[in-house]
Amino acid sequence: MAPESRSAPAVTEARHRDEWGVEFSRIVAFSDGVFAIAITLLVLAIEIPENSADLTRVLEHQRGDFFAYALSFGVLGKLWLSHHRFFSALGRFDPILMGLNLVYLAFVALVPFTSEMLGDYSEQSIAVIFYAGNMFGVSLTFALQIAYSYRANLVKPEMRDVERRVSAPSNFIVAGIFLASIPVAVFAPTAALLMWLLIFLTGRRVSDRLAALRA
Amino acid sequence: MAPESRSAPAVTEARHRDEWGVEFSRIVAFSDGVFAIAITLLVLAIEIPENSADLTRVLEHQRGDFFAYALSFGVLGKLWLSHHRFFSALGRFDPILMGLNLVYLAFVALVPFTSEMLGDYSEQSIAVIFYAGNMFGVSLTFALQIAYSYRANLVKPEMRDVERRVSAPSNFIVAGIFLASIPVAVFAPTAALLMWLLIFLTGRRVSDRLAALRA
Amino acid sequence: MAPESRSAPAVTEARHRDEWGVEFSRIVAFSDGVFAIAITLLVLAIEIPENSADLTRVLEHQRGDFFAYALSFGVLGKLWLSHHRFFSALGRFDPILMGLNLVYLAFVALVPFTSEMLGDYSEQSIAVIFYAGNMFGVSLTFALQIAYSYRANLVKPEMRDVERRVSAPSNFIVAGIFLASIPVAVFAPTAALLMWLLIFLTGRRVSDRLAALRA
Amino acid sequence: MAPESRSAPAVTEARHRDEWGVEFSRIVAFSDGVFAIAITLLVLAIEIPENSADLTRVLEHQRGDFFAYALSFGVLGKLWLSHHRFFSALGRFDPILMGLNLVYLAFVALVPFTSEMLGDYSEQSIAVIFYAGNMFGVSLTFALQIAYSYRANLVKPEMRDVERRVSAPSNFIVAGIFLASIPVAVFAPTAALLMWLLIFLTGRRVSDRLAALRA
Repeated sequence: MAPESRSAPAVTEARHRDEWGVEFSRIVAFSDGVFAIAITLLVLAIEIPENSADLTRVLEHQRGDFFAYALSFGVLGKLWLSHHRFFSALGRFDPILMGLNLVYLAFVALVPFTSEMLGDYSEQSIAVIFYAGNMFGVSLTFALQIAYSYRANLVKPEMRDVERRVSAPSNFIVAGIFLASIPVAVFAPTAALLMWLLIFLTGRRVSDRLAALRA
Repeated sequence: MAPESRSAPAVTEARHRDEWGVEFSRIVAFSDGVFAIAITLLVLAIEIPENSADLTRVLEHQRGDFFAYALSFGVLGKLWLSHHRFFSALGRFDPILMGLNLVYLAFVALVPFTSEMLGDYSEQSIAVIFYAGNMFGVSLTFALQIAYSYRANLVKPEMRDVERRVSAPSNFIVAGIFLASIPVAVFAPTAALLMWLLIFLTGRRVSDRLAALRA
Repeated sequence: MAPESRSAPAVTEARHRDEWGVEFSRIVAFSDGVFAIAITLLVLAIEIPENSADLTRVLEHQRGDFFAYALSFGVLGKLWLSHHRFFSALGRFDPILMGLNLVYLAFVALVPFTSEMLGDYSEQSIAVIFYAGNMFGVSLTFALQIAYSYRANLVKPEMRDVERRVSAPSNFIVAGIFLASIPVAVFAPTAALLMWLLIFLTGRRVSDRLAALRA
Repeated sequence: MAPESRSAPAVTEARHRDEWGVEFSRIVAFSDGVFAIAITLLVLAIEIPENSADLTRVLEHQRGDFFAYALSFGVLGKLWLSHHRFFSALGRFDPILMGLNLVYLAFVALVPFTSEMLGDYSEQSIAVIFYAGNMFGVSLTFALQIAYSYRANLVKPEMRDVERRVSAPSNFIVAGIFLASIPVAVFAPTAALLMWLLIFLTGRRVSDRLAALRA
């Protein structure tokens, strides 16, 4: 990977490889590690009390936990794919992008917490608001990474057109929908949940249509 | 790895490397990470109460936990080996395979939960049913990945014959046995446990015999 | 990575590749793994009681946990970047450096514990002292690794001047400030907290000034 | 790594790369992952009760936990180094070695549990016995891996003499000392603890002396 990224785009400056000395592939591997651990920690949110006489009833009570597990596994999985796709389009990186990525990962690593809360308290607005807020933080810092990378010329030249059309705007839209779901959750937590599922289902179609519009 | 997989099989289409931009080796590394974390989280299921006067009695009570730990470590270890073997036979991948793999990993990452439940409640049918259901989900999504990969021409040509004879049918058989153990568990949880051990012990022999029959 | 480090600097001795047989890149990957896991485990410190009637009040009570999460994520993120930068400047390693690195990682992996304690008990001096002590341990063992590597000639020749000016002294300063914050915490825990934030904010500027002074 | 191990020793058979299809480097990475996770999970054993009025007294009570953390971090760190050194001497692998390695990893991943128990109950014989038993399991399965690899001709020819003199016998000795500490722990748990520290301190010297004797 190292030789490929070294000889990569002829675009100059940024990167500061000597000043920073952290290899690109390591940052990606570190981000992957945080994703893999966060996605596997989700399971710890499904708690089983010891010495319960009627396990079946306990499990019925945990239906929310299973829903939150499936939702968050899907969300983190999708986020990981997007993150990967975006980083593979990068030719260089700089300190600001690394800082943004770290804040982004801090939101990603928070998902096991907000997901557990959503599983246990989906009927209380505050739990839904926190989950939406977490996802808003994730999508916003991701959209900022993309927008910044284009402005700072960090994207591989041959990737510029493909990525620009799709990634940045659709991510700002997702961030916006999560933001919009926060006031909804204050009055109707379940309606906010449905808004997210819609993002999940239509995500691909919206970004395709956006790409078509711009092309 | 990248150059190897790029120049790999002459088979065309699928893959969509430009559209997806996620490198094959990263998907494998991510899957490995989820396996390694899930297998190491199994230990958290063996709980020790603080300030117990008689630790020996506590530990006797946890015999089920040790059995579940050993069983699930063995099962996840075997699954990891199979997953690896299968992915090393792949020449390409596509979005559908990646989606199937993510659902598969969601079942794998669930094992620490169902394993903890099995350790604490092996005498209650519902715990055995959930474990069997989890394993059914794992084996089914794995079998589907294999079947789909053959249909979509994602397997390296030189691997086609070797793998086809063995992998897919034996995985459908394992999925079937786990499915069959669910009704058994309703009436006799222990009998279902024994059915799984049989899979474990005879697994290799059955697939060898199947391969011989087909050859 | 292997070929690069093998043919790397013409400096002799140390390394003992035959005697130790552990590849350099593996030590880095292992350290990265510990960092990624520790940073992701931080989230487990934010606990949510099940079956609480008023989740909003519970979350207000956990404000300290969120502060500790953000602080420790930032600290571990910065530490990881520094560790990486330093290791990429190394041409060789020896048993003593590996031992120091293991002690360093033991302090890194302790952060989820001291961070959880800080989140729950930031008004009690002992929690702040433990956190400061943990960070002192991390910065001291890191500074020792750097100092030792220069003495034992383990740094790549072309990196010697760049790194020497910046890394070692600024790390000893950080270790010193954490040490100084311990007596402060005895009387005023909050003042100690502010001292750390100052390190965080001024860290870069101080090391730049130091580098300028020496140049 | 792949090309190196492919063209590696001219020794034939075993390996069964086609039949098994799991790459050597992946097995090493998986083992590394389990080690990194297990060593980082150790910290979860140091529990902090919420809402305690006097945290200082709580922490004094947890002295055993800190001792267990330091001991187990050191032990797992040493084990990881040995495991790595041994695997880097391997030219090939086969199903039996992989099975042994999986059992070995099951004992490694169990350490966070026995370590937590040791921290909480070091005055009760059973906790010390379990820890010794766990370590006996680890050292025995490691010694078996080494012994088997020599018998099955899996070690690189150029490494045979270096490794044989040192690794296998000293590992059987360590396994033996842990086994011997079990009856000691029945009557005097603290004496068993001291026996382990002796292994740790003298380990290197003993294996050097053994190597000298044989040479």
